[in-house]
Amino acid sequence: MAQAADIRQKYRVPDSPEPLRGADVSRERLLQATHELLLETGGAEPSVSQISARAGMQPGMVSYCFGGKRQLLDALMLRSTEHVMEELRNVAAADMPATEKLRRHVRRMVANFVRFPYTQHLSERLTAADPGIQPFAEHFAAPTLEFYRNLVAEGVAAGEFRAEIDSNLLFFSTVGMCEFLFAAKSWLPLAGEQLDEALIERFADHCANVLLTGITPNS
Amino acid sequence: MAQAADIRQKYRVPDSPEPLRGADVSRERLLQATHELLLETGGAEPSVSQISARAGMQPGMVSYCFGGKRQLLDALMLRSTEHVMEELRNVAAADMPATEKLRRHVRRMVANFVRFPYTQHLSERLTAADPGIQPFAEHFAAPTLEFYRNLVAEGVAAGEFRAEIDSNLLFFSTVGMCEFLFAAKSWLPLAGEQLDEALIERFADHCANVLLTGITPNS
Repeated sequence: MAQAADIRQKYRVPDSPEPLRGADVSRERLLQATHELLLETGGAEPSVSQISARAGMQPGMVSYCFGGKRQLLDALMLRSTEHVMEELRNVAAADMPATEKLRRHVRRMVANFVRFPYTQHLSERLTAADPGIQPFAEHFAAPTLEFYRNLVAEGVAAGEFRAEIDSNLLFFSTVGMCEFLFAAKSWLPLAGEQLDEALIERFADHCANVLLTGITPNS
Repeated sequence: MAQAADIRQKYRVPDSPEPLRGADVSRERLLQATHELLLETGGAEPSVSQISARAGMQPGMVSYCFGGKRQLLDALMLRSTEHVMEELRNVAAADMPATEKLRRHVRRMVANFVRFPYTQHLSERLTAADPGIQPFAEHFAAPTLEFYRNLVAEGVAAGEFRAEIDSNLLFFSTVGMCEFLFAAKSWLPLAGEQLDEALIERFADHCANVLLTGITPNS
């Protein structure tokens, strides 16, 4: 599992956007500990005592720093979307063809799901338990759906995408495709593959190529 | 959530292949109870007491019928793949073009993941906890990878698929695509969608169309 460990190190925690001071350091350690446990267990929700033990802190620090475990998990889910959402805004505003926008978005999303493979499923379980709170849906799914609507409209208007492409279905199929590689990482040895940078590159190219050739008019 | 309940009823438990007698009835009730709890919680692993309470049975029946909860979950995962694997064998043996084989496989897989959205992620978490036992990988992933290898070879030989298509990557991207609709069902309202037969049909068609046009030579 050396390769997986290398990847985990590289696609390591959610960097904080600002220099850390005092309580922020404790928050980061708890986020990092939770992130590691989620990766190691294939996404099983860790207990407060597991999180605090991994962080080398007293269990009470989870409440002190976040108000509770649910808020810690919410903060981690928001952090997990930061890079992909920043890219999304940049790409949406950029002056480039729709096909290139989709390609860049797919590459970022594959890399992000390799780093945070647990996010969507953790969000789904937390939402099932408490439907009122959906930070991942609000911060990732809603703006990404909007991005797909605009992207498909642009692509169709420019003649790059077929007119009948449904942006909702494209969203679900693309996110599902990008999410799956690390989510099913126990299957990689069956395919004679291992999770390394080369595989991530190949997979991102494959997804973008399948999608783009599929939604570009044959000519 | 009436629609979701309708779907759940329709895509209801794993039918047993044979008429039930004695202990088999108890096994089926426990499988059904576990299936329902997994659907309701977005895939969170239920406790033995939750399962037995839902089934209206004593907690000891889980051990009596299956040997333990892990064996019950393994039995449910095997059951969840029965229809899709039967279809896979039929399609592999059928005399039809590779494009049609992929289309039929995708439709079946979308329907199967709507019915059993929790299976792959539950399997991944169980494997992380105990890497030695991988019934879902052995019974679903391994033969499906083989199916993709043969399908791509057939399609390339017949000129239906581009020569550079990688069957491993096609497997991961296709399964991920098909798996995602119900796995992310809390996002459907954000898209103005609801999970019903019409959406499942549209999604299966969309996935097959995106994949097929993507892997068919442009001409």
